[in-house]
Amino acid sequence: MILCDIGNSFFHFYEKGHMWKVSVKDRPDLPFYDDLFVVSVNEKALEKLKKLYPSLQDISDSADFNSSYVGLGVDRVFACMAVEDGVIVDAGSAITVDVMASGLHLGGFILPGIASMQKAYALSAPVLDRKFNFAIDAEVLPQNTVDAISFGAIGAIVAMIQKVTKGKKIYFTGGDGAYLSKFFDNSAVDETLIFKGMQKVIANLAR
Amino acid sequence: MILCDIGNSFFHFYEKGHMWKVSVKDRPDLPFYDDLFVVSVNEKALEKLKKLYPSLQDISDSADFNSSYVGLGVDRVFACMAVEDGVIVDAGSAITVDVMASGLHLGGFILPGIASMQKAYALSAPVLDRKFNFAIDAEVLPQNTVDAISFGAIGAIVAMIQKVTKGKKIYFTGGDGAYLSKFFDNSAVDETLIFKGMQKVIANLAR
Repeated sequence: MILCDIGNSFFHFYEKGHMWKVSVKDRPDLPFYDDLFVVSVNEKALEKLKKLYPSLQDISDSADFNSSYVGLGVDRVFACMAVEDGVIVDAGSAITVDVMASGLHLGGFILPGIASMQKAYALSAPVLDRKFNFAIDAEVLPQNTVDAISFGAIGAIVAMIQKVTKGKKIYFTGGDGAYLSKFFDNSAVDETLIFKGMQKVIANLAR
Repeated sequence: MILCDIGNSFFHFYEKGHMWKVSVKDRPDLPFYDDLFVVSVNEKALEKLKKLYPSLQDISDSADFNSSYVGLGVDRVFACMAVEDGVIVDAGSAITVDVMASGLHLGGFILPGIASMQKAYALSAPVLDRKFNFAIDAEVLPQNTVDAISFGAIGAIVAMIQKVTKGKKIYFTGGDGAYLSKFFDNSAVDETLIFKGMQKVIANLAR
């Protein structure tokens, strides 16, 4: 069984604990498999994969997910499916933060990704077009421009995650997940969250 | 006596409690005055004003300001000069936050302005290119995309100001100052902060 999460830029594959990715511009060559399950936020790439592997099963709409949130991306749905109680942070080009309690999705919010925050400073004023200091101490008031923007941006992301955590464990995924997790004690980095959610949904479908 | 704070876009004038502004592209026509004191972050506009009013006194470097911060803009210095104890928030194209305690500047940080935050979301993902809901409740988890980005951006700004406030009064200035002040009990909106700082420096110079 192979699992595939299709994003805007990549096919993300998972098989027996092994993960790999292929650009949506390229042709994924899959090893021998019996089943191929897919979730996708990228209709065009999904069609491409379907042509190569006509027997694939798109389970994007198969999650029995309890939420009042209108317009929750399928990637967020499946990552949340993997967590009964906790905060799920997907830190990529945007940062999505979702809160789960007893299998119920309580809501979520979105921050610009770290790279986009850097661009936002450049748009605010040319003098703020600087690279962040990623070694910033989130508790010490800055004494220069680079620290002032780094403290502002990274501190804001950390403060907003803290605000909704309320003692829950935080699950980080996405490119900046490992970096952000360092600011939190009760946290884990898990790049397989979406695949865990898919496995849960597939198990439910099989019942 | 007329006071003038020259920013990137405007000459901001102050005389006897009355304020007005003139684009740096235009020619400011001043009423009869005995003294014209200026602080400026805009060298070119300062030169222009000097040509029109050769007797002006540039007091940009005259503040006796106690800080370890390297590269603090003169607008921030003079706004801080007006406050012995408190947090000074200038919410414009960027949002600067400075902390004063017993006349000492403890440091500060910078956030992208609200409009720049909106652009940062658009850069993160096309689906996030939406206008904010400014009536967002900062305490209720969002249930749709517009609320999710509004909660994220405005919540982040509010959380970061809260983080350094520690019981101090917050003084808001700048275009988004009045809006942001609504999220804080112990706050005031004061568009004259820089001019109050200038008056203090002028009084010290006269001694």
